[in-house]
Amino acid sequence: MSDSLQKEQIILGIDPGTNVMGYGVLQIKGQQMILLSMGIIDMSKLENHQLKLKKIFERVTWLVKEYLPDECAIEAPFFGKNVQSMLKLGRAQGVAMAAVLNRGVPIEEYSPRKIKQSITGNGNASKEQVSALLQKLVKFEQSPKFLDATDALAAAVCHHFQFKGVGSKSKGKNKASWKAFLAENPQRLKK
Amino acid sequence: MSDSLQKEQIILGIDPGTNVMGYGVLQIKGQQMILLSMGIIDMSKLENHQLKLKKIFERVTWLVKEYLPDECAIEAPFFGKNVQSMLKLGRAQGVAMAAVLNRGVPIEEYSPRKIKQSITGNGNASKEQVSALLQKLVKFEQSPKFLDATDALAAAVCHHFQFKGVGSKSKGKNKASWKAFLAENPQRLKK
Repeated sequence: MSDSLQKEQIILGIDPGTNVMGYGVLQIKGQQMILLSMGIIDMSKLENHQLKLKKIFERVTWLVKEYLPDECAIEAPFFGKNVQSMLKLGRAQGVAMAAVLNRGVPIEEYSPRKIKQSITGNGNASKEQVSALLQKLVKFEQSPKFLDATDALAAAVCHHFQFKGVGSKSKGKNKASWKAFLAENPQRLKK
Repeated sequence: MSDSLQKEQIILGIDPGTNVMGYGVLQIKGQQMILLSMGIIDMSKLENHQLKLKKIFERVTWLVKEYLPDECAIEAPFFGKNVQSMLKLGRAQGVAMAAVLNRGVPIEEYSPRKIKQSITGNGNASKEQVSALLQKLVKFEQSPKFLDATDALAAAVCHHFQFKGVGSKSKGKNKASWKAFLAENPQRLKK
């Protein structure tokens, strides 16, 4: 089967935070996962909470216009330290989601644990482990400056795996698929 | 001084919730507060959380386009039952704020307590008390079906009072101003 017959898809991964928002744009072309863009939106220097929200909206709107993603995957923690921080996180998530939904792009949410498990097979993997495996899966050379951007890309890869059948919603299935994936890709076990 | 020389202003009040969002559009014309619109956006029948967020964004965007508010006042509780509900509330707030900020309208946030105190002089006033006073201040005839809409209108009135000098950020000042307000408007004390 030629690549041209296979579905091409662009997935926008987002890791929203109140001070730093990571994003990764992934192109699925046949068996390949190609990195189109990865980076962060830095709001830490903006004093005003509203300016931060405005920046998230503007930048995510731009990303959607620029890359025309078919789908969006968002890293969405459902637990936090306290109600205050969760309210702020909810706002950042809401603004990013509004920018995506406003352009008619469907969103899928994944917990950080689900994303880690999908990429590394271990829901408790470190950011560095996720990043190292991602570099092999997506084949980008330079080590990313910001781990937040890696998390966003990981969300996009995790989303792709759900439909490729590598990952799965149930833990048992996921394990089996991960095993199958490793069997097909033994080189990814090294290190 | 004629009314035409005084600043005219339109304030959009919003009371975001995850299932019901209230709004009130207030026109300030000289000494008058005129109700332009008041209502709710009902998301309770939408099963999907994302559809709810999308509806909030679309309706708030429409309100801003339709009434061209100069400023927006939002009722923003900073405490909640648990982190889960605060995340959801944060998302609803974030989406509504994105729609407003996207059109360049500045937002001011007020706690429920601040709004109640500004309208009734009592931060612990009931919704019914706030609604009763609002009806006299803004002079709308029919009793509102939904108290959520009243809360949104109350946020708009509260915002107006901040600049009119009727309300104030410090409790002491607020009390004094409220007393002065009542002295000027003794009919508002009845009932």
